[in-house]
Amino acid sequence: VRLKLKLDLSKTIGCQCMVSEEFQEVSPADFFWRNRDIAGFTNPARAIYTTIREIVENSMDAAESSGSPPDVYIRLRDLGDFYELLARDNGSGVPANKIPQAFGQILFGSKYKLRQTRGTFGLGGKMAILYGQITANKPVRIISSTGGSKIHDYSLSINIKSNRPKVQKHKVLPNPKRWHGTIIYLNTQGDYTRIQSKILEYLKQTAAITPYADLTFVDPSGRYYRFERKTKELPPPSKEVKPHPAGMDVEAVSRIIASTKTSSMLGFLQKHFQRIGEKTARKFLHHTGIDPRRNPKKLSADEIVKLCTTMNTFKFITPDASCLSPIGEKILTVGITKEYSPEFLTVVQRNASAYSGFPFVVEVAIAYGGALEPSENIPLYRFANKIPLLFDEGSDVARKVVDEKIDWRSYKVQPGSPIAVFVHICSTKIPYKTVGKEMIADRPEVERDMTIALREAGRRLMGFLSKREQTRAKKMRLELFELYLPKIAKFSAQLAHRKKVPDIRPLLKAIASGKSEEPAIMD
Amino acid sequence: VRLKLKLDLSKTIGCQCMVSEEFQEVSPADFFWRNRDIAGFTNPARAIYTTIREIVENSMDAAESSGSPPDVYIRLRDLGDFYELLARDNGSGVPANKIPQAFGQILFGSKYKLRQTRGTFGLGGKMAILYGQITANKPVRIISSTGGSKIHDYSLSINIKSNRPKVQKHKVLPNPKRWHGTIIYLNTQGDYTRIQSKILEYLKQTAAITPYADLTFVDPSGRYYRFERKTKELPPPSKEVKPHPAGMDVEAVSRIIASTKTSSMLGFLQKHFQRIGEKTARKFLHHTGIDPRRNPKKLSADEIVKLCTTMNTFKFITPDASCLSPIGEKILTVGITKEYSPEFLTVVQRNASAYSGFPFVVEVAIAYGGALEPSENIPLYRFANKIPLLFDEGSDVARKVVDEKIDWRSYKVQPGSPIAVFVHICSTKIPYKTVGKEMIADRPEVERDMTIALREAGRRLMGFLSKREQTRAKKMRLELFELYLPKIAKFSAQLAHRKKVPDIRPLLKAIASGKSEEPAIMD
Repeated sequence: VRLKLKLDLSKTIGCQCMVSEEFQEVSPADFFWRNRDIAGFTNPARAIYTTIREIVENSMDAAESSGSPPDVYIRLRDLGDFYELLARDNGSGVPANKIPQAFGQILFGSKYKLRQTRGTFGLGGKMAILYGQITANKPVRIISSTGGSKIHDYSLSINIKSNRPKVQKHKVLPNPKRWHGTIIYLNTQGDYTRIQSKILEYLKQTAAITPYADLTFVDPSGRYYRFERKTKELPPPSKEVKPHPAGMDVEAVSRIIASTKTSSMLGFLQKHFQRIGEKTARKFLHHTGIDPRRNPKKLSADEIVKLCTTMNTFKFITPDASCLSPIGEKILTVGITKEYSPEFLTVVQRNASAYSGFPFVVEVAIAYGGALEPSENIPLYRFANKIPLLFDEGSDVARKVVDEKIDWRSYKVQPGSPIAVFVHICSTKIPYKTVGKEMIADRPEVERDMTIALREAGRRLMGFLSKREQTRAKKMRLELFELYLPKIAKFSAQLAHRKKVPDIRPLLKAIASGKSEEPAIMD
Repeated sequence: VRLKLKLDLSKTIGCQCMVSEEFQEVSPADFFWRNRDIAGFTNPARAIYTTIREIVENSMDAAESSGSPPDVYIRLRDLGDFYELLARDNGSGVPANKIPQAFGQILFGSKYKLRQTRGTFGLGGKMAILYGQITANKPVRIISSTGGSKIHDYSLSINIKSNRPKVQKHKVLPNPKRWHGTIIYLNTQGDYTRIQSKILEYLKQTAAITPYADLTFVDPSGRYYRFERKTKELPPPSKEVKPHPAGMDVEAVSRIIASTKTSSMLGFLQKHFQRIGEKTARKFLHHTGIDPRRNPKKLSADEIVKLCTTMNTFKFITPDASCLSPIGEKILTVGITKEYSPEFLTVVQRNASAYSGFPFVVEVAIAYGGALEPSENIPLYRFANKIPLLFDEGSDVARKVVDEKIDWRSYKVQPGSPIAVFVHICSTKIPYKTVGKEMIADRPEVERDMTIALREAGRRLMGFLSKREQTRAKKMRLELFELYLPKIAKFSAQLAHRKKVPDIRPLLKAIASGKSEEPAIMD
């Protein structure tokens, strides 16, 4: 290399004018302040949408993790130059000593676990606060309690340069009723009017996917939108799980090695990963060529690489899905019926599946008729970890599946039918394409599961449509008989010189019940 | 508020089962390690593409900022389990004491200025190093000099938890020839075969947009791709400029206030912002209702908000575009001709324009015929700050403009024509939709400029196509005369009993030159 290097250098010599570069370190808060567009704060309209969305999602997560059916109240007041957003939830609350950082420090939070939550980046809520700060220049007020004897009331802002909270005020109030939850007062700029319809659509879809939540929104004109709880049943809460080996990389494995107390590879694998028992561990180690008695802390850099690449390709059992909290047929049916009142509704939930070590569950629903409007393109409602996704539908894998993978005509769905498709994916790590969390990447495993689920739902819809068609055909036939049989009876009676026209009612009844033998009658 | 609060609290009481939340701070390196997909490291194929792309772009930026025409050499060697990437440039080099952080700390860099560079987030190069580290588990080797008497040779890795560089080795070598530039040896995993065509396409497009660069790529099979320099002319280098008031927010203004030495608002505005002279400053301050003699450091929080909102809406002169470095007609023509050899090529460069305080310039080119293949959809080559964008074309504003805003038939372009469209936008801040830098958001100002430029180019193409059509028609007419005139001449001679057939050559010549008067001849 040395010799080659020398040779290379001689080729690239010779330049006069130099610009000196200045180097600089920026904090995460600074980075996301400069690049707030990528977190969904593109313009005042989109910013107010993202603010409401992030705060609703944090509230829902907090309530669900505390095991209570969420009660979320959002009020947006117009204060002239900016809005005041009030958000109140009945969540688990934030421990007093964590409040400043949890609300005033980017990349600090409780969302870095292997567990299904709406928030994934630990970023959105704080970006809403940061955006409020750089537009309205007021501290945010947080009132929270975890249900103990005290309620804490903080006013704080974010020091963007250092990414640290600046506490302006801190009061402690008594909590005789052991209330738990969080209340936020946030001043922020935005363009509500331009984005109103999207915000209402977001709330409606949230209500559809979480009918166990009580959601209230008071808009800047004082108008009151209430999405009432329709069931008290919550989906099973998501649990934290051990990582699946298929999702491992050198950093992840090295961290586990650094903290492990096991002294053999055989024990190490069983203790720290899901889906590995002794038998699998032995088979796997034989495959990688690492001695089961080796001390994990003594593996070489290359051995760790070997371990990881084998983990990524070895056939393990599919990841444990108990860390997921799909919505389920029952709750989805309640929610969709409540918000869309279709004539027909079918829900298909797939078994847990996985992409690169992350488990996921796909649930789909097809609704038809009733209050649904006919539409040229099939309306698609997309959800990820119970979040409605309203933007960038064109780049989402679900749209691709609906448009390209499903032959709707083969399920008797004509263009312009009153149909709606709902697709929900839940995972410990949704494969979002962007920090803005609006579109899901087309991972082959996800695409496959969505396709299979929608085909199954399509077949059920076809069953319903066929049956309805049969019923209609039968009804038309009956109407025909009802019209002509009396005439035929009368005519036949005249022809036979009988005074009494025969009673055709038993015959019609037989036809209606489908028991009549047509030839016998028609002859 | 207090009373209301009490009332509200009583409504949301009552829950038994609590899950305690654990809180955690993560470093930026940790964040992007967990979310590497959003930076373009989605899978092994895409990762190797992004790695090469980020490293080429950093090299190009470094060379251009040093004022030399870039010499970039990239070699990818297959080492079995992973690749070794060697990248060498003749850029400005990195000062020795900054090397560890510049390559081993996320969100540390020289890219946080108001100046046009390819890199915008100060993230990509380090993500490539991070990805190499978590897949191949080897330190990265950096050899660099700024052209002084020493060359520094570092081996280092990133401590992801703390986001700090870990230097493994550091050697100092003499630099008798005053070489400047950077050499990187990086081990990384990837799937080259699956993404090869995209990588080659990326290099070809890079060569087309920077014909003043010398670009060499040696692929894992040892194949040598050379994109030779075709001009030594560089676009004018981009300069750092003062910020334009239209892009200001509270944080940005507060930082300037904190560091200013001016003691009056009148001086403050003129000193720290572009496009503000005394007259504009007075008019602006009158408009905001702030006394010109006010000390900026004594403004209240609300006054700062007022200042910002007025800055965002006040009609200032369009931002200074001297911080931009568009490619220009001459260089673009060389580059596109070199790589695509069209029969016709036209380049349109728009004047500088701006969106929310950020200046931008749109350049477009339409190429037609020659080596171009006929194609149903119009092929679009997208560039942003001289970077080719190869992914997610469907969500890019340029695709939207080409497909929806331009009526190609009105410019005589039939479907299936051998055409290609090139769109380049340069800006101090490209409105990317994502950190992956693959699609440009449809800001109305950008969309408008692209549309106008493409229509102008379309008209020129129509001119060319019309002329070509005329030439063809003329040629056909001439061929017709050449065929029949001799016969007519002969026939007429016979009819008139003349022996000598008249010489029709002068007539044909006249027709070819378009000087003949048709009726006179045809009669």
